[in-house]
Amino acid sequence: MTEAAGKTIDVAVFGAGRIGRIHAANLARQPGVRLKYVVDVNREAAAALAAQHGAQVADIDGALGDAAVGASVICSSTDTHSELILKSSAAGKAVFCEKPVDLTLERARACAEAVERAGVVCMIGFQRRYDPTFSALKARLEAGEIGTPEMLIVTSRDPGAPPVEYIKHSGGIFKDMLIHDFDIFRWILDDEAHTVHATGSCLSDPAIADAGDIDSTAVTIRTKRGRLCQINTARRAAYGYDQRFEILGSAGMLQAGNVKPTEVVAWSKTAVAQDVPEAFFLERYRAAYAREMAHFHEAVTQGVRVRTTVADGLKALELAEAAAQSWREGRVVTLGA
Amino acid sequence: MTEAAGKTIDVAVFGAGRIGRIHAANLARQPGVRLKYVVDVNREAAAALAAQHGAQVADIDGALGDAAVGASVICSSTDTHSELILKSSAAGKAVFCEKPVDLTLERARACAEAVERAGVVCMIGFQRRYDPTFSALKARLEAGEIGTPEMLIVTSRDPGAPPVEYIKHSGGIFKDMLIHDFDIFRWILDDEAHTVHATGSCLSDPAIADAGDIDSTAVTIRTKRGRLCQINTARRAAYGYDQRFEILGSAGMLQAGNVKPTEVVAWSKTAVAQDVPEAFFLERYRAAYAREMAHFHEAVTQGVRVRTTVADGLKALELAEAAAQSWREGRVVTLGA
Amino acid sequence: MTEAAGKTIDVAVFGAGRIGRIHAANLARQPGVRLKYVVDVNREAAAALAAQHGAQVADIDGALGDAAVGASVICSSTDTHSELILKSSAAGKAVFCEKPVDLTLERARACAEAVERAGVVCMIGFQRRYDPTFSALKARLEAGEIGTPEMLIVTSRDPGAPPVEYIKHSGGIFKDMLIHDFDIFRWILDDEAHTVHATGSCLSDPAIADAGDIDSTAVTIRTKRGRLCQINTARRAAYGYDQRFEILGSAGMLQAGNVKPTEVVAWSKTAVAQDVPEAFFLERYRAAYAREMAHFHEAVTQGVRVRTTVADGLKALELAEAAAQSWREGRVVTLGA
Amino acid sequence: MTEAAGKTIDVAVFGAGRIGRIHAANLARQPGVRLKYVVDVNREAAAALAAQHGAQVADIDGALGDAAVGASVICSSTDTHSELILKSSAAGKAVFCEKPVDLTLERARACAEAVERAGVVCMIGFQRRYDPTFSALKARLEAGEIGTPEMLIVTSRDPGAPPVEYIKHSGGIFKDMLIHDFDIFRWILDDEAHTVHATGSCLSDPAIADAGDIDSTAVTIRTKRGRLCQINTARRAAYGYDQRFEILGSAGMLQAGNVKPTEVVAWSKTAVAQDVPEAFFLERYRAAYAREMAHFHEAVTQGVRVRTTVADGLKALELAEAAAQSWREGRVVTLGA
Repeated sequence: MTEAAGKTIDVAVFGAGRIGRIHAANLARQPGVRLKYVVDVNREAAAALAAQHGAQVADIDGALGDAAVGASVICSSTDTHSELILKSSAAGKAVFCEKPVDLTLERARACAEAVERAGVVCMIGFQRRYDPTFSALKARLEAGEIGTPEMLIVTSRDPGAPPVEYIKHSGGIFKDMLIHDFDIFRWILDDEAHTVHATGSCLSDPAIADAGDIDSTAVTIRTKRGRLCQINTARRAAYGYDQRFEILGSAGMLQAGNVKPTEVVAWSKTAVAQDVPEAFFLERYRAAYAREMAHFHEAVTQGVRVRTTVADGLKALELAEAAAQSWREGRVVTLGA
Repeated sequence: MTEAAGKTIDVAVFGAGRIGRIHAANLARQPGVRLKYVVDVNREAAAALAAQHGAQVADIDGALGDAAVGASVICSSTDTHSELILKSSAAGKAVFCEKPVDLTLERARACAEAVERAGVVCMIGFQRRYDPTFSALKARLEAGEIGTPEMLIVTSRDPGAPPVEYIKHSGGIFKDMLIHDFDIFRWILDDEAHTVHATGSCLSDPAIADAGDIDSTAVTIRTKRGRLCQINTARRAAYGYDQRFEILGSAGMLQAGNVKPTEVVAWSKTAVAQDVPEAFFLERYRAAYAREMAHFHEAVTQGVRVRTTVADGLKALELAEAAAQSWREGRVVTLGA
Repeated sequence: MTEAAGKTIDVAVFGAGRIGRIHAANLARQPGVRLKYVVDVNREAAAALAAQHGAQVADIDGALGDAAVGASVICSSTDTHSELILKSSAAGKAVFCEKPVDLTLERARACAEAVERAGVVCMIGFQRRYDPTFSALKARLEAGEIGTPEMLIVTSRDPGAPPVEYIKHSGGIFKDMLIHDFDIFRWILDDEAHTVHATGSCLSDPAIADAGDIDSTAVTIRTKRGRLCQINTARRAAYGYDQRFEILGSAGMLQAGNVKPTEVVAWSKTAVAQDVPEAFFLERYRAAYAREMAHFHEAVTQGVRVRTTVADGLKALELAEAAAQSWREGRVVTLGA
Repeated sequence: MTEAAGKTIDVAVFGAGRIGRIHAANLARQPGVRLKYVVDVNREAAAALAAQHGAQVADIDGALGDAAVGASVICSSTDTHSELILKSSAAGKAVFCEKPVDLTLERARACAEAVERAGVVCMIGFQRRYDPTFSALKARLEAGEIGTPEMLIVTSRDPGAPPVEYIKHSGGIFKDMLIHDFDIFRWILDDEAHTVHATGSCLSDPAIADAGDIDSTAVTIRTKRGRLCQINTARRAAYGYDQRFEILGSAGMLQAGNVKPTEVVAWSKTAVAQDVPEAFFLERYRAAYAREMAHFHEAVTQGVRVRTTVADGLKALELAEAAAQSWREGRVVTLGA
């Protein structure tokens, strides 16, 4: 608990689902923060979350119309993100928005412009950058521990596919799942893509193929500086949520490994066994979510520069579109000058 | 966040030092808990902690004289523990007290009797039993994963010795440091000591020897059922806080490993390197402290049976005394029937 | 030591360099094997190796002209492989030949046909298939431990680039270095490539680029059954020889990790450090080389079917050519029906 | 393969059992070594081993009476060791003898004197000192990597108990099994015992207790310089052969871990699993046995000072006797001035 920054802030939370509840709790823990409104089409969920934090249930205009509200935390469904960013920034609120900004580049760009025009803080929820392991690795990379970065290998696998109904409206695996990996790529290599190649298959459930999507991808990016990145992704890993990457540099390698629930090691007749990784993103990135909100808080109250911007959201989305195109057309895609 | 149990409780915290601040924050996070009083001879520390939680500074009698107070959390210096346990239980408060109960068996027994007479909840701060790794191991042991437990090896090393001034009033390494390891022994082997042998040396700082103490110990316990336990302890491990144990059973082995701050692995010309363990007990047992207070809360509000009792405190103290005697006299000590 | 098969065999070794000496020693250890001839343009090297095994120095025709010679072991420079395979098979000798069969598909195919025609045993030196770790993984995969294989990630990095003079005559990184990885791909996924995409860069030494080659590659293969494979390769890893792969299946994952010289773990103020991997292929694949020759011996003496055939050599070479083309032309290459 | 030292040597092997066959094969691999005689009461075993190496079967006097024989390798049953050492040294042969020298200190001392008098090389088979992991650790310790050694923890567990019939003639667990651990203690701490405490139990099989022995021990040694050592031993570890130790120094810690057959890691729904350790001593110490014989060879042919002497054998035996006494009498034993 650091000392309060002296500035208090009222917050409106949009979306009272799983991630909304996590962000709300983490934000409420910051000194001087008060959750004032919870907005959700599911009034029951809104009411429950509001009760937990002494907040009120409101609708969008009610929440944004209150001049005392300093910040919007947008955790609602993806199709509402752009509207809420536009309205919040127009109302002069600082904005935190879950990824992706939008499923279309066009609307995402409109958001970027609106935020720019309004001059408000806008942070996108690429929580992985706040993960203790990932951010320690990044700091050591920047400190020169392995020289110049050259090759990045990202492994990103979910424990199981979401319902096909969700997949149909997800924008496809590249926008829905790899968006995080594309952000990791840009952040770790500190470079932009020159060419993208993506291929993939539907290996776990034919219903995903019927929905026009795939569940396994292999993406390769070559950057403007000639660095290489390979990303492998799967919707289903039987052993759980697999979130690793490794960066080869001219003087060594840094790996970010999975996080385990416990450090128990069991020696039996057949194996020396450790825990499987943390079950899914809510557990795996628990510390990252907490640090993310602390960062949003310091951005809003102390003017600290936001580390995951709407521009980052746009860039990741461009990569997702390029990858999807590469996969559909079976060819290498070169990104614009 | 589970639903509030419906019962609210006012708490008095004794001791506003490091561990007091941690317990206060963890307790305040429980639903329905209000920190009402902070008591500390250091009025400044008391005031700071009170301010953080909207509590008042009080003296012992003021805090215990308030009938609305349901629980005492005792984190003050060891020499005040027994007095505060006696007064709190006499006042009908539930008691949480940091280890050790007292440095003398006599006063510790008086506490046990007082608590028994008063019929109040009394929990001793053996936080290791609440650690995620240790408690998962214990659960798997009880589930029979490795058959019958036979041999326990405990490694318990601090990153550095405390000031000699502290050591002089610590009761000696067996009561100050190994008290936790003796509790682990009893908990994991689920058995009582029959014989104890302890030896040791002062290897890091002659001032510790001058103070009549040692900094390195090797303890062996044989239990009533013939099980074996070896404990190795050092006041100084250059690589940090080392907290491991392993239990060999008739059908396998379970190990509890150290906890690392991150999962970064660095590959250089000379080594494949991982993080050293969490720096010290405040970091290493952060999750354990949180679970410990959650358990105290459920004991007080829901009548759940306390898992670390004053009887456990007494047993650990008896072992510490036996070990100290074995070391001083250079012989095996047999514990009473 | 298994019982001798009863059949003795005289062997001619072509090439007395590092790998020739290793194969010679491993072969000589087999029961009933006698090294009769060593052939090398470097007469001194030939003489030294011959002396070590009580063999004679000979020229190609002398060695192959001796009807008592049952097997040729070809470890000479790549440009001599096809000629020696052709001559040996024409002379009715069993053939062991280091990879690659040849740098051109045309000559490699001619070798395959000649061997077929002659009806002789012909084994290609893909020693990795005989590695204890890799072959144990393969056996567990075949036993169904992780269900159906879906995605293979291969990491293949050398400790440092060879001299540029070597690189100029190497056939390029895809034929020289990835040939092993392409064989691993086929062996582990038990499938053939449908499309290949390769990209790469020269990141360590501009002289490699001047020689028309690259030192870092990222290859993606999609198989006929829709399985995915990514291979990342570098000529220089500062921490040494890095030889790992992992195969994701429908029911789990199997990883093959690096092999370390010792199991020492060093805990210092800054790190918990293990050994870097075995230095290079001679150390890393020491056991594999021994098993490889034992297999060649059982193929020759007991008629056991050869596990790494000239057909495997051809397939790996086809993949290397496709990858090189993909890299040069910046496009996805589809392999023939 | 280093160059032959130029000196050839004829060897007599006593004992054609498992360990005899291993030593014979390792010795035969040294340049200039010829196995001339194999001696075993089991003539069939002797004949088989002799045939494998082109040696002859002989009796003791026949083998030792041949002036051409330069070295005796004694791998016969323990009760024959002292007689063979005495006769071999009297005949002027260099001696390699498996541990222990003898089960009685008296006869072991007689051997030491005889060897001294004869001025012959005498090496005792403490093969662990030649293990790559253990010897690398020792070298790093001596190089000062962790400062001054302070505390040693040895874990030494067999996969299963030998037949009770063997145990009855084994000299007891301290002489039979811990003899190796006592040697590790002396070698790693580079110090001598001042006090020894041992306790133990029979936990796996009552028949062992009926034979007057135990199967689980916990030994503590305090050295003359005040260093501490704890050894835990079990006749049965369900997960296999467990051979670890760790040494805490003033500036860090070095651990020697178990050796695994392969580096496969399997990720399943329930665990991330690695191989159990190498099955038993023949596999675990395969490299150590090879290096041990290479060392004996260089001692005999090049006059290199033997690293594991008969004096080391005596010291380990003294510790075993002290530990056995401590266990039997339930008290701390102080070793002679």
